[in-house]
Amino acid sequence: ILEFKDHLPEIETQSTLVIYDSVLEKLDFFSNWINRFPHSIKLEAGEDIKNLDHFAPMMKQVHRHYLKMKKGFQILAVGGGSVGDLAGFIASTLKRGVTLIHMPSTWLSSIDSSHGGKSALNIPPFKNQIGTIYVAEKVYLIKDLLFSQPEFLADDAMGELWKIALIEDKSLWNDLSQSNQSTKEILWRFLERAIEAKWKVILQDPYEKNKRRQVLNLGHTLAHIIEGIHGFNHGESVALGLEFSLNFSSERDYISDEFRDIILSVMKKQGFESIRKPIDEGIFLSSLLNDKKRTNSGEIIFIFLEGLGAIKREALKTTEIIEFARREGWIQ
Amino acid sequence: ILEFKDHLPEIETQSTLVIYDSVLEKLDFFSNWINRFPHSIKLEAGEDIKNLDHFAPMMKQVHRHYLKMKKGFQILAVGGGSVGDLAGFIASTLKRGVTLIHMPSTWLSSIDSSHGGKSALNIPPFKNQIGTIYVAEKVYLIKDLLFSQPEFLADDAMGELWKIALIEDKSLWNDLSQSNQSTKEILWRFLERAIEAKWKVILQDPYEKNKRRQVLNLGHTLAHIIEGIHGFNHGESVALGLEFSLNFSSERDYISDEFRDIILSVMKKQGFESIRKPIDEGIFLSSLLNDKKRTNSGEIIFIFLEGLGAIKREALKTTEIIEFARREGWIQ
Repeated sequence: ILEFKDHLPEIETQSTLVIYDSVLEKLDFFSNWINRFPHSIKLEAGEDIKNLDHFAPMMKQVHRHYLKMKKGFQILAVGGGSVGDLAGFIASTLKRGVTLIHMPSTWLSSIDSSHGGKSALNIPPFKNQIGTIYVAEKVYLIKDLLFSQPEFLADDAMGELWKIALIEDKSLWNDLSQSNQSTKEILWRFLERAIEAKWKVILQDPYEKNKRRQVLNLGHTLAHIIEGIHGFNHGESVALGLEFSLNFSSERDYISDEFRDIILSVMKKQGFESIRKPIDEGIFLSSLLNDKKRTNSGEIIFIFLEGLGAIKREALKTTEIIEFARREGWIQ
Repeated sequence: ILEFKDHLPEIETQSTLVIYDSVLEKLDFFSNWINRFPHSIKLEAGEDIKNLDHFAPMMKQVHRHYLKMKKGFQILAVGGGSVGDLAGFIASTLKRGVTLIHMPSTWLSSIDSSHGGKSALNIPPFKNQIGTIYVAEKVYLIKDLLFSQPEFLADDAMGELWKIALIEDKSLWNDLSQSNQSTKEILWRFLERAIEAKWKVILQDPYEKNKRRQVLNLGHTLAHIIEGIHGFNHGESVALGLEFSLNFSSERDYISDEFRDIILSVMKKQGFESIRKPIDEGIFLSSLLNDKKRTNSGEIIFIFLEGLGAIKREALKTTEIIEFARREGWIQ
């Protein structure tokens, strides 16, 4: 279902409703391409479009297009995570499911959210409270579109790339760690393998019925906290969360300090910046308690690394995480 | 997943959100039972609660309960089709799916809509434009609750019972046809076999990806038209639709006139009233064109009977159906 292209592809325009991020219109090649579609909806991408309150008017707009088109109707989502999350939810629920195609325009969504079928709406201040699991029939990965993005958004995707490389078998990390290209070149080169690695995990548990998908959460315990509180980008947060998890793993002797240092030095060479922005303990704790990976007794499932491709899940008391976060400089 | 009970069961009250039809409060035994639940939402059942415009406020209300309960959270829907359709949609999309339990309070939903996992919202004037397929973890069938219903609602369910008996193998129809009990006794006695027969069809095509579920549409081509235009009850419409399909099948010699007459006489013995309320041809046609069982060339998939348990699907031109409807007295 993956299709790699250098340029925007020819797509049947009469039966396709394109839902896209309006910022893309600044790109001439995109403007020319989108103008061929008689049916499209443009959105100002961002979490606000996923607000539950906007769902009914948006769904009605989509439904009006649907009534005009019907035969072979499909939804093509062109944008980052927010556009994909919303369009995915619409596609999965309109007529109990219409064809969905993703064309991620951000590096982060190209490596992460456009795969695995998670759609989502928000009930502010709570993110992703509503959603479905509904896999796209096709995901287009378009070089033109991805390379047109600002550099800092490419940097942001590296967190997820490092993560998937660490939980995948050794060859992906080894090849990645020897890479000296630009961030975009690295991402484009490893995109297919990173997606395949993610799918290998997802297919063990497509509907999140068991715990196999939890390995994808490496680095995400801290990431969700600092993303929510500081508003850091997701990939940036994941990178800092990976550092947190690596340090935690070496403190517990699951990995050696040397091994941790090698990984961190590769990340730094490829743009990772180890920063700290400490958080009040009470706020840190209440954010930690929102973690969805909790056991029935209230412990947090934390993902440690034991080696390349070797993950250790452990239920930790919140106090254990808080204390380590203090030692790490994340709690003031 | 079916559970037959004489009385309302003990259910864990702390983790269950009950969404129920307010009319049930008139029943003392129900009032006493529902009062034990700290978390419940009552609705005035009917198609209006499925209006997309009401979805966001309803979902927020459910979400507030969810935040208070969380651990082991489940939704129990007690009501007829509209309550089940809405609660099912909510359960399937909240947190990408929480546990759903159905407790149908109408005979029609007990035999039909509470099984098979279809949830739905409306974009008026269009019904069921939004939805998911999400099977309940359990369906409770409560004798007390069902027998407390008015007689005419029991009559209404017979249409679906006759339908499923005709498309199932011979033994269900044969046993049903020899039944001389009251309508409610008949329904209660055959409920389990009717549900099993429906599941046998559904399991051939749980997500409606092929056409195997279309046999459940026996009688539904006319039923949807007269239900929509005259506002007849669903089961009543299905019974009239069965008569229409049986007459059509015998006109085309797929079944003999004698066989058709035997079936219709059983239905009449068990309460079926063969009435006509003719419809303007233009209105009939535009309603027919809304039929979702259409081929790409615009023909309607019509379900004929060829014998007990023997179904014949045929693509018909709309004019063929219109002409037969005129001969049947359904077009003025």
